Order: sequence, then structure tokens, then C-alpha cells
Amino acid sequence: MSDYQLLVIGAGPGGYTAALRAAKLGLHTAIVERREVGGTCLNRGCIPTKTLLHASQVYHDAANGASVGVHGALSYDMGEMFAFKRSVSEKLRGGILSLLKSAKVDVLEGTAQITAPGQVSVTGADGTRTAYTAERILAATGSVNVRPPIPGLDLPGVMTSDELLEGTDTPYASIVIIGGGVIGVEFATFYSHLGCRVTLVEGMANLLPQLDRELGQNLAQILKKQGVEVLTSAMVRSLEQTGEGLCVHLEQKGKELTVTGEKVLCAIGRRAYFEGLFAPDLNPALNGKRLLVDEDYRTSIPGVYAIGDASAAVQLAHVAAAQGTDCVERMCGGKGSTDLNVIPSCIYSAPEIAVVGLTEAEAKEQGIPAVSGKCTLFSNARTIIEDPGRCFMKLVARSDTREIIGAQLMCQHASDMISQLSTAMVNHLTARQLLSVMRPHPSFEEALSEAVENLTAKLA
Amino acid sequence: MSDYQLLVIGAGPGGYTAALRAAKLGLHTAIVERREVGGTCLNRGCIPTKTLLHASQVYHDAANGASVGVHGALSYDMGEMFAFKRSVSEKLRGGILSLLKSAKVDVLEGTAQITAPGQVSVTGADGTRTAYTAERILAATGSVNVRPPIPGLDLPGVMTSDELLEGTDTPYASIVIIGGGVIGVEFATFYSHLGCRVTLVEGMANLLPQLDRELGQNLAQILKKQGVEVLTSAMVRSLEQTGEGLCVHLEQKGKELTVTGEKVLCAIGRRAYFEGLFAPDLNPALNGKRLLVDEDYRTSIPGVYAIGDASAAVQLAHVAAAQGTDCVERMCGGKGSTDLNVIPSCIYSAPEIAVVGLTEAEAKEQGIPAVSGKCTLFSNARTIIEDPGRCFMKLVARSDTREIIGAQLMCQHASDMISQLSTAMVNHLTARQLLSVMRPHPSFEEALSEAVENLTAKLA
Repeated sequence: MSDYQLLVIGAGPGGYTAALRAAKLGLHTAIVERREVGGTCLNRGCIPTKTLLHASQVYHDAANGASVGVHGALSYDMGEMFAFKRSVSEKLRGGILSLLKSAKVDVLEGTAQITAPGQVSVTGADGTRTAYTAERILAATGSVNVRPPIPGLDLPGVMTSDELLEGTDTPYASIVIIGGGVIGVEFATFYSHLGCRVTLVEGMANLLPQLDRELGQNLAQILKKQGVEVLTSAMVRSLEQTGEGLCVHLEQKGKELTVTGEKVLCAIGRRAYFEGLFAPDLNPALNGKRLLVDEDYRTSIPGVYAIGDASAAVQLAHVAAAQGTDCVERMCGGKGSTDLNVIPSCIYSAPEIAVVGLTEAEAKEQGIPAVSGKCTLFSNARTIIEDPGRCFMKLVARSDTREIIGAQLMCQHASDMISQLSTAMVNHLTARQLLSVMRPHPSFEEALSEAVENLTAKLA
Repeated sequence: MSDYQLLVIGAGPGGYTAALRAAKLGLHTAIVERREVGGTCLNRGCIPTKTLLHASQVYHDAANGASVGVHGALSYDMGEMFAFKRSVSEKLRGGILSLLKSAKVDVLEGTAQITAPGQVSVTGADGTRTAYTAERILAATGSVNVRPPIPGLDLPGVMTSDELLEGTDTPYASIVIIGGGVIGVEFATFYSHLGCRVTLVEGMANLLPQLDRELGQNLAQILKKQGVEVLTSAMVRSLEQTGEGLCVHLEQKGKELTVTGEKVLCAIGRRAYFEGLFAPDLNPALNGKRLLVDEDYRTSIPGVYAIGDASAAVQLAHVAAAQGTDCVERMCGGKGSTDLNVIPSCIYSAPEIAVVGLTEAEAKEQGIPAVSGKCTLFSNARTIIEDPGRCFMKLVARSDTREIIGAQLMCQHASDMISQLSTAMVNHLTARQLLSVMRPHPSFEEALSEAVENLTAKLA
């Protein structure tokens, strides 16, 4: 008999969710983690970023409070902001540990290696190795930041989000952020809200190049208004340290350009991480740089499954968690209840961005007959009150079935309203079915009625 | 031929929405307003309150910002806060006027009286009377604050929300708020956030007595923590002016009690308003104190319709607007697209409250087999970050069909997520259909998954 029916490697959102579900389904379960439970998301990703963004928003709102009647000489303490960040992560870690404990999941501290099918060795901080046997092994080892081989990108003062989130007691006067994706724009928002000079560099023609073009273009306008220098179509060639700071040499549309910052954040992307996870003689099949899995999350190594960033096409905490549940349910002959095809994605800029499904352009590329309805929030009362800049909503529907197939929201609280559209998509609701909803006044969300009306008119 | 095909009386959310829809449907339309367009909602109700609440929240968040690293000697200018409030209302009024203008709706300034079926006289500020004929007349005259005949409730310094929202340049040291309904708790939040000593008096056993009991109880705890003195089951007997301020004499559970404030807000409720709307010889049938209407919004006077607070059972801006559209569509042989049976209701306390449909207790009273699922937001990451106090979500489903029939949310951004549940109700979705939605992390809204899971387990 094996030591465990399931041994999960990695206690991020995918891993701990899987372990909890496994325990609920009656599997004798262990989870291995070499750092803190909660993984990247909770310790070096979403949560720390959102915590810092909350703190910087409080500062920014009051520092710019004259228009709402709020005055005063405001200051912030960067060290305290990072301490706040640590306290939030700690609370959440405590919550996860107590859930694991009460579910009777063994938490094994150390670095795991799959030595053979069904066998895992765990090396503790002191070098002690312990061997475990497990009926099934689930790799949930996540992802790490990418640092491409650009000359100078290894200089001191050039950070990824990992180093940046370790914190500092002194504010930076200026920062160059390389990469205008989710991580880049969130940190640009954080630093610019605190009055730091920010230069945001993106290689593609728009910020957030994976998303509907209007989102990135609109965000660039808003960031510029916040004082951020936004450079798009700008490729980083090299970095050097000078007396004035870190110089980032760029090429933009055939021209050379140099921008300078006290610090540089490299936010170019993340890649699947499973270094050393498999013993050298085990060679799991890959899908590009990710672990290859089948629809039951099986890797090519017998009894070894993988979920989350290590294997998934979409690197998001809620995808990892949903896969974790689905994977474990499938091990036990069931199936997770979440529809894994409808994946929301949120960006915590100011205003927020939240998307789900297809853009109109993507639908058309895929040969799907589609139209989109749109509204701006210029006349939305709560948007006028909070004044976050130009906000809009787009909804996409199939023109044949009239079902909602996508949504792009850029407005306050977008991350809390996108699930209304996901609910519509998962349940194949039509535009007209969304039109029958009476939306509360005043809310940000009520603008959706206008977008739905616009969409319905086009579908008529 | 009549002057107008439709003459709307009252340019609040019900009236102006009806006028715009009528114009869109091709009716030659006028709208009469004796004060500002936008009605109570925009000028003396929801919008001014939410504007002030935003300002006080900015102040409060930063004034209590030490825990997130924000410091400084903060102050606020009450006069500027009210100026901000006026500027927001003005922008929104401008928007409505321009919509009316481009829709070619005639805006008639003055006080309207229906002199006979099809005939309306409008008296301008200068006393000039103009007579108009109209094929149809729509009364959208709204509601006014109630001031019950309690001794002393007419003293100077005792205000309703109308007088309070006219503004002041100097903060109040203390205020007694009579009425723990929506208006009362919103102003209690505003003043307590600004450091004013607030006493909130409610005659029933709980705040927000119309809603699920746990909402009012939880809110009372949160307000108390914010420093508000909350007195429930407390009936106001009389008021008097003393050297120490306005004394409000109460009876609470058989005991006499006196609370004192510099000012008193009377927030006991609102009643349908249509004083002088009908010529003395026209006697429209009433439904209690409201205008009686049939399902097509017809009053008993031929050709005269009524919508919104003047006739509706539920006094909410979005109900008035939906009725306005529906009424005009029906005049033209159609039907509004909004389901008027699923009505969301929001309270802009901190945290917000949003409800729709039935509570579990209400369902059972009506003989509907029902269960509820619940979750608290103790472990919700964004709630831990913003720390608004105890938050929870309740969902109610029929135990036979498993359809969602109600929701009670108390959390940040509740007003922007309630429509997800309204969408479910309008479209008869089951708990399981909500369970299949992948919710974004981190969001306040993701806690819904936990509530849905809890509900689904009880339905199994």
C-alpha cells in the first residue's frame, strides 16, 4: 500500500484546491511545498499586487482629494505598505494551512522530486531526504518569471516582480517597466499613483496586446494622463548602469531611444516551471515549454498528473484552481462542476479591466458570425462621481443564435461584474435574455443595460 | 389635433426615461418639470447621497490609512463636498437635457395641473399659465419625504434629506438620525466617516427592517464599530430644543431615553406625491396613498397614466425607469423588455448591501419550498485587503425546481454584482447553473462560488 493515495506537489491555488477536494472525496492526501503555501498568487503575485494597489489607491484618492473636499499634507511609508502586503499574505496563508489541517491533508515541507512512477522524494531545508510512495502524483508547480537574454538585464537594480515584491523601505524616484502586459500595467498604476516617475515599455503596438485593441489603447491614454510615459512598439536592446541610473536602450520604429530609471522592472512574462521535478531518467512529454497533459490531466509519466501554470495554456489562479478540482474529481470517476471553457481574466488597473470569451475580431477570425454592442460610461452616474477616466463596455454575440460569446469591460469594479457575462456564456443566454434584467441605479454595472440594448438593436 | 401625443409630468428617472422612449417610438412628446430635471433621484436623493458617500469614503480611508502605510494630517471642507455634490448633479442634468433636446422632446418649465382628460395647464415661475392638449398624459410626479406629526419634529434644525442635501459649510458635531431604513443608514455612514457623532434611531427591532434580518443586525454591528450609537425598538415621542442641542425623547422597551444632537435628520420614509396634480373636480382612484393604476399604468382618469413613486409599490429609480419604458411601449402596442418582477435593491452603506427576490423566510411564508446557501467573506482575499467588516452572501433557491429565487449580499461592490443573481432569476437558472461559472481571482464576487456550493450541497 502506498503512503498516500494522492501526493500533490506545489501548494499554490491549483495544488491546495486539489488537495482539499481530494481529502473531501476521501483520498489520503499530502501536499509538498518548498516555500510558503499559497504559491505565486498569494505570496508573489495577484494578492501582494492587489494589496499594494489598494494602498496606493487610498493614497492617490486622498492626495487628489481637493475636488471632493478632502485636503491635507499626505505621505506614505513604503516600508509600511510592504508590511501591509506581508500581513495580508500571512493571513491568507494561515487560512489555507488551517483548511489543510482540518481536512487532514499532510503538509510536507521541502522540495519534491518524482523519482519514479508512484515515488517522490522530499528534501527538507536541512538536506534530509524522505521517500514517499503515492498512488497518484499531481504536479502543480506553477510558473516563474522570464528574464530574456538581453544584455544588461542581469544588472543589479533590474528586478522581476519576485524581487520587487520583496519590498523596500524607500520609494523609487523613477522606474522603467519593461512589458506592458498585466503585470507591467498593474505596477505602472501602483508607482504612478504614488508619484513615482514611470516609463512603461511594450514591444507590441498596444498595451495588453493579447486583448481587444481598444482596451490597451484606452489604458495607454489613462496612464499617460496619470503621468506615465508609455512607449509602444519599442524593443529593448540593452541596459547599462550610468551615473543617472539604469539606462534602457530601445528601438522604436527604426529609431534608437534611451529611457532612464532608478530601477527597472522586467515584466515580460512567465513560463511553466518544473525544473528538477522529474528525476533525470524521467522525461515527461512537453507541449512547447509546458508539461503535456491529456483531458484527464495525465502527463506521459504513469500516475503523474499536472495542472495549473505548469501545463495550462492560460496562466491564471482561478484556472489552476478549477483544473485542480476537475482533475481530482476525474481521478475519482467524476467531473468538476466548473465550465473550463469560459475563462474570465482581470487586470487591476485604474479603472479595472475584465474580459471573457471572444472579441468581435477573434470571433470573425474563427469564422463565427458575430456582432458587438458597446457603451461608454460618460453618463454613468457613479463613473461621473469617481471619475476614473474613459470607461466602456463591449459585448459580443453570435449573430445567428444571438448568444453572448464574449465581453470586454473597462470600468470600476469590472472584476466583480464579469461573471454576469460568464454566467450568460456558460448557460447560452442570448442578448435579449440579458436585456430583461432590471439593473440597480446608481451602479457602475447598470451601464451594461445600455451595451446590451446596443447589441440587441444590431441583432434585430 | 392635440398639442402633444404624450405629455409627461415630472422629469425624474421615470418621466424622462418615458419621454425619451416615447420620442424614439415616434410620439410627439413634451415633459413638464417645475424644478430641475432628474427629479429626486438626481437632485435630492440617490446621486447626491452617493456623491457625498464617495467623498466621505475617500476621507475616511486615508484618515484611517496608517494600517496601509498612508499618513498625514487630513481635513475636509464640508462646503466643498456639497459643491462637489452639486457639480455631479449638474453634469447629469446637462446629460439628460441634451438627450431630451436631441430626441426633440419639449421641456416645459412650470407646475402642471391636469384640468380635464387630455388637458394640462402649466404655470410658470412668473405665474403665466399655458394650456396644452395631449392625447395621453403620464404622471411621474414621484414622492416626498414624510414628516409625521411628532411634537417638535418641526423645530428648526430638524431636517429631512431635502434640507440636509441643500448643504452646509460647517460640519455638524453631532446628529440624531430618526429612521434606520436606507436613507438613515446611508447618512449615518456619511457622517460617521467624517467623524461626526451619530445616533441612529429605529422603531423596529432591526435596522433595514424590510430586509433579511441578518443584514440589519450585521450592519448595526459595523456601524457601532464605526462609532455610531444604534438604538433599535426605539420610538420617538417628542423633540425639544435645549441649550445642549436638539433633544430627542425616546421610548425603548418601556423605558424613556433621551439622545441629543446638534441636528436631527428625519428619515422615516417617503410617500407618493401628486398634490395639486389633478384639478379639484378630478378624483383619481387611489391605492392607499398612491395613485391606483392597472397593468397598463392607466389611472381612473381617461388618458392619464402613472408610473414611478406616485403609483408604484416599490419606490426606486430603476423601477420608475423600467415602468416608464414599459408604459410607453404599451401605449404603442408593445411591451418593455425588462422583467418587472425581479427588482434589485441596493444600500450604499460600507460595505454595500444588495438584495433581489425573496429571503428564505419570505419564501417559506409564501409556502414556497426553499433553502438558502451562505458564505462569509472572512477568507476572501480582497475583503481581507479592504477590511470593511463582516461580509456575507446568501442565496435562496426553490428546493423543488432548484431555481434561484433570491439573494442577499452584504459586501464591497454588492451593487455591481447583484445583477448576476437577477440574471439567474429572470432566466430561471438553477443553483447548479451558477456553479459552472469560473469566477475570477481575486475578486469580491468570487465568494459567490462558495455560497453557490453551499446551496447546491443543500439541494442535493
